[in-house]
Amino acid sequence: MNSSQKTRQRLDALAKPPGSLGRLEALAVDLARAQDRYPPTVGHPHVVVFAGDHGVTAAHPVSPYPRGVTQAMVHTFASGRAAVTTLARQARATVEVVDVGVDGLGPVSSGEGVRFRAANIASGTADLVAGPAMTAEQARAAMQVGRQVVADAADRGVDVLALGEMGIGNTTPATAVAARLLGRPALELTGPGTGLDSDGVHRKAALIQNALDRHGPDDPQGALADLGGLELAALAGAMLEARDQRIAVLLDGFIVSAAALVATRMEPDVRNALIATTASAEPGHRAVLAALALNSPPLLDWGLRLGEASAACLALPLARSACAIVREMATLDEVLNP
Amino acid sequence: MNSSQKTRQRLDALAKPPGSLGRLEALAVDLARAQDRYPPTVGHPHVVVFAGDHGVTAAHPVSPYPRGVTQAMVHTFASGRAAVTTLARQARATVEVVDVGVDGLGPVSSGEGVRFRAANIASGTADLVAGPAMTAEQARAAMQVGRQVVADAADRGVDVLALGEMGIGNTTPATAVAARLLGRPALELTGPGTGLDSDGVHRKAALIQNALDRHGPDDPQGALADLGGLELAALAGAMLEARDQRIAVLLDGFIVSAAALVATRMEPDVRNALIATTASAEPGHRAVLAALALNSPPLLDWGLRLGEASAACLALPLARSACAIVREMATLDEVLNP
Repeated sequence: MNSSQKTRQRLDALAKPPGSLGRLEALAVDLARAQDRYPPTVGHPHVVVFAGDHGVTAAHPVSPYPRGVTQAMVHTFASGRAAVTTLARQARATVEVVDVGVDGLGPVSSGEGVRFRAANIASGTADLVAGPAMTAEQARAAMQVGRQVVADAADRGVDVLALGEMGIGNTTPATAVAARLLGRPALELTGPGTGLDSDGVHRKAALIQNALDRHGPDDPQGALADLGGLELAALAGAMLEARDQRIAVLLDGFIVSAAALVATRMEPDVRNALIATTASAEPGHRAVLAALALNSPPLLDWGLRLGEASAACLALPLARSACAIVREMATLDEVLNP
Repeated sequence: MNSSQKTRQRLDALAKPPGSLGRLEALAVDLARAQDRYPPTVGHPHVVVFAGDHGVTAAHPVSPYPRGVTQAMVHTFASGRAAVTTLARQARATVEVVDVGVDGLGPVSSGEGVRFRAANIASGTADLVAGPAMTAEQARAAMQVGRQVVADAADRGVDVLALGEMGIGNTTPATAVAARLLGRPALELTGPGTGLDSDGVHRKAALIQNALDRHGPDDPQGALADLGGLELAALAGAMLEARDQRIAVLLDGFIVSAAALVATRMEPDVRNALIATTASAEPGHRAVLAALALNSPPLLDWGLRLGEASAACLALPLARSACAIVREMATLDEVLNP
């Protein structure tokens, strides 16, 4: 019997009607499958936020926020006063912020409980509408950053990762990558991101369609370099390494899910490492989740659209509770025959 | 400006697109409204499980579990090895188990972190199909137990309550009370409870309809005594006291929600104290939640159907995170003008 089957068997023996803890039980099974371990654990959860800028924002109005907000938010993460760091503290998780492609980031002084990693591959990507966002070498290097972050986390005993991102404009590359890998027109997958109106969404979809019409590569790594972002590439690398290390991954929103699509197209078994935490209104996110076909639907349907790993952090206490049920509850037999 | 408005204003000023934390923001506003306090807090969460038996189970097969499971589960709660105590530990909440109507409960030795309160009004209710489940005096006394538990909790500084119940067969009285107060036929509100099949559901609905056809009182307290249960009455009393004490109440499943219907019919302002944590498949639960018309929909749609306050416990870390966001995040102005 494998770890997820052992977990299922234990859950069925506990002092409760079978299945009565619903999706909390499914979450325990998913964690056991991801970790290939019985009982599953949330012993050392680690939150990683990969940050990068995007050439498309310099040339086109795809976001209501200026590019400089990416670096400002990296400083806010480092100070511990962002949403993700606040939620990670509540979840008793360590936090790492990784500059894989932020433009103009000065020295970062990180506060208590937040690790900053300088791993800048480039000052943001090139404009994906005009040509390839990254060279193949840049994409490979960014993926390697993600792999290294997770390998280091594994060395410290991390058993669950909450993955997130920061990058003004990054719903545009995420939508473009998803559209190419799924063979769908841009308009079907483009949404408001952090707050575009209907006209803005149509202009954004037209831009993304222009990028798709350049007819770049449609293999996962090729599409990632052509249309993606440095933080997207790092996320995909992190997921590949997490699968190798048997670390469970709590996905965040659309951007992280688009990176998951790349990683699972490269290595289908990666999907067994992944747990979706949020269903968003962004149409691209819904399409990507459908394509990933994970073992369970997203844990929360709360209209979250911040990113930063905020949804993944909210899911951490739920994951911890799922493991505690397996480990600490009495069986029905113990209750009836004390 | 009142506390919920102040909370809304603060959330809108934080370093994130407005509304981007979705229902986490609504949860913070709901907590501020319930506590009439800015910022809202989850400083001392307390879980209370009221337990009682039901005369209907002796005469009719309304549950697949024997009546003795109620007392066995009270001992399991006290030992700390039940679902609710496991989940409460994860949520760093104190737990209190209250015998308000358990049949044949011997001495209870409670373990670390679990308080047991002996407040038995009767060894279960009478069979609600044959006649009134409780006397008016019993119902009043059970409500007073609930009030006293919450008044004592308020003295210890409890600011959030997670309310739950244990009582084999108690979806039957909960359905009966809901049907009478909502003026609906039993068949529309009757569901499988902990695991009846379709025939079982029809037999259960017919029994409940027989009880309704006795044409007992239809005012909230009268219906509660006629058709309810001792733990249902204690829950309603606990909610009335929580509103008086400005303690936020996380509701659990159908039984607790039916008690909330009684409490809000007695005192409409009680609804401002209440936060729904779980949407269940039980048709009576959906009908009761619709009638309660709380400020936000249930937090989790996870197919939970255990009771015991298990859903309310799962919601506690989410409530704590909602408060932390209000208290600890930087404002957008602080980020852009450091």
